[in-house]
Amino acid sequence: MDERVREHADVLVDWSARIERGDHVVVRVAEGAHDLAVAVAEQLGERGATVATVYAADEVSRAYLRGHGGDFETPTHELALYEHADAVLSLGGGRNTFATADVDGATRQASAKAVDPVREARLATDWVSTVHPTRSLAQQAGMSYEAYQEFVYDAVLRDWEALAGEMQQLKSVLDAGSEVRLVAAETDLTMSIEGRTAVNSAASVAYDSHNLPSGEVFTAPYATEGTVHFDVPMTVSGSRLRGVTLRFKNGAVVDHAADVGEETLTDILETDDGARRLGELGIGMNRGIDRVTDNILFDEKLGDTVHLAVGRAYDACVPEGESGNDSAVHVDLITDVSDDSRLEVDGETIQRNGRFRWEAGFDAASSP
Amino acid sequence: MDERVREHADVLVDWSARIERGDHVVVRVAEGAHDLAVAVAEQLGERGATVATVYAADEVSRAYLRGHGGDFETPTHELALYEHADAVLSLGGGRNTFATADVDGATRQASAKAVDPVREARLATDWVSTVHPTRSLAQQAGMSYEAYQEFVYDAVLRDWEALAGEMQQLKSVLDAGSEVRLVAAETDLTMSIEGRTAVNSAASVAYDSHNLPSGEVFTAPYATEGTVHFDVPMTVSGSRLRGVTLRFKNGAVVDHAADVGEETLTDILETDDGARRLGELGIGMNRGIDRVTDNILFDEKLGDTVHLAVGRAYDACVPEGESGNDSAVHVDLITDVSDDSRLEVDGETIQRNGRFRWEAGFDAASSP
Repeated sequence: MDERVREHADVLVDWSARIERGDHVVVRVAEGAHDLAVAVAEQLGERGATVATVYAADEVSRAYLRGHGGDFETPTHELALYEHADAVLSLGGGRNTFATADVDGATRQASAKAVDPVREARLATDWVSTVHPTRSLAQQAGMSYEAYQEFVYDAVLRDWEALAGEMQQLKSVLDAGSEVRLVAAETDLTMSIEGRTAVNSAASVAYDSHNLPSGEVFTAPYATEGTVHFDVPMTVSGSRLRGVTLRFKNGAVVDHAADVGEETLTDILETDDGARRLGELGIGMNRGIDRVTDNILFDEKLGDTVHLAVGRAYDACVPEGESGNDSAVHVDLITDVSDDSRLEVDGETIQRNGRFRWEAGFDAASSP
Repeated sequence: MDERVREHADVLVDWSARIERGDHVVVRVAEGAHDLAVAVAEQLGERGATVATVYAADEVSRAYLRGHGGDFETPTHELALYEHADAVLSLGGGRNTFATADVDGATRQASAKAVDPVREARLATDWVSTVHPTRSLAQQAGMSYEAYQEFVYDAVLRDWEALAGEMQQLKSVLDAGSEVRLVAAETDLTMSIEGRTAVNSAASVAYDSHNLPSGEVFTAPYATEGTVHFDVPMTVSGSRLRGVTLRFKNGAVVDHAADVGEETLTDILETDDGARRLGELGIGMNRGIDRVTDNILFDEKLGDTVHLAVGRAYDACVPEGESGNDSAVHVDLITDVSDDSRLEVDGETIQRNGRFRWEAGFDAASSP
């Protein structure tokens, strides 16, 4: 076995999920994630955890959903599995990223509703999602298989402790701050973050962070004003989005345009009231990720990028008892800030052309 | 998808497991059984059952067991899954029939003990085991992949209702009978079956039969006397057995020999007291199975064969409250009765050279 697969499993089990002796662990295995499942099982054995493996195959889901008449019931046996689990490790990596493309939306939604208690039970555990590099994901990224493997392991096999320390500095600034301003090409946007709490997403349940890789600091902004342009292309619900511009007034989108996928963008913004407001401001800090691969798990953590999501805010960012922006959607849009851009908190520049204030080269970077 | 895979799934879900609307079904998927899992999921959707899929991969088990220190705990989350399930469909078919060959016996036993409550919970459901034809099973059978697929579907895609009716005739004879005598080359054996109940193993939970394919009638004999020779070769615990002869006196083996694997045979018979006595007399009646493939799921149902197992008897054959032969082992040995042989019940010939009394050609078959 590729030694990197073992290292991936080690980071997942130790750093990310913090598995201990006697933990009851569910491992969810996508069609193409067999090798990672083997490596993870060995680690779980070594730690004296118990393991139950679930086959999370898109083609099996598709067949079930298409066969079904639509009157779904909650799978109470699967619910019981997760209710008795301490941790859930989801190993993504299928054979075809469009495997469920021909399941109609109504069926999907009806099923999701019936399965919601299962999802809730899963999210109540120490859960972590990661992906095993597969040919299908390489294809989606427009990369060779070998190069894609390199890409994934560069993103996953980080010095997470060091990155967590660095991200903590940004979190402190955001937690103490009231207003964020983003200035870049075709972009000048201000948002309030007063009273909101940033998450140091360091790829570990110990940091309330459930993705491996991670490497972003995010919070829940509101009262957004101004214009923002997103130059990183992406796929949303199977549709391509490119060159998106949003104009905000009184916290809500009042104007929008896209070079590609404007209709999709309009649909998203018209979902509900919350879909016109921001739910997330995220700052990508994983410099192991150095290119766009059309996979949000990686793209939104790309070093030297900022992403904003329209729609639902994360509870972790909002004071206990209050609720942040609510919506049925949460769509991330990403912009490159490596050049000709700056991020201010309360009027003070904290990132300029991709360099943070505490990094070497910050002073030298010329202001846009 | 190969239409036969769909037909296999249909037989499994409808005839074998009798799945109904609202049933909570666990589907256990071996590494090579993906296509059958897809077909089964579609059927379960059509019937309005719920589904939870378990990844039953030998290589994952091996890694876990080899990683583990040996102090196993019961996976209570997996236990909860099965306790809340109505049916469990196990889709066998791995990538390598020796995938766990290098896990030591002590680790295996310690794990099995911790997992025993899970096994019990699984056996308390309407469970059915089947296999998807894989290259690994073809290799074990010494067959090409294409030919092995034909073989499996010939065995599985039967007119089960008709076969169940035919087997019922044999069950009636055995239930009413007191003594069975088997006469064949190097064989003259008598056994008592007085008070015992035969199982019509028609590949359906409705018949207390949990294998697909099945196609055998079996009971629990005792007070065995005489000699029996087994001419069908097989692999037991990784060792080859061929040309086995057993001589019984007062119900127990007093003499044994084997052309190949005599040491293995000796080990089996010396396991405990029950290992020297018969636990099963089975009569193979699945004529869709026409060759030996070194897989007991198929071999023991081979048409025109009789198998006898030393060791543990099945509870279903023994009157309520009584216990049949008890042992840690249950090892099936098979003999061909298609030629030069007869089976008598209370002195009356019920099968001669593979033809049953109620079949055309029975009278014409000359007695050995």
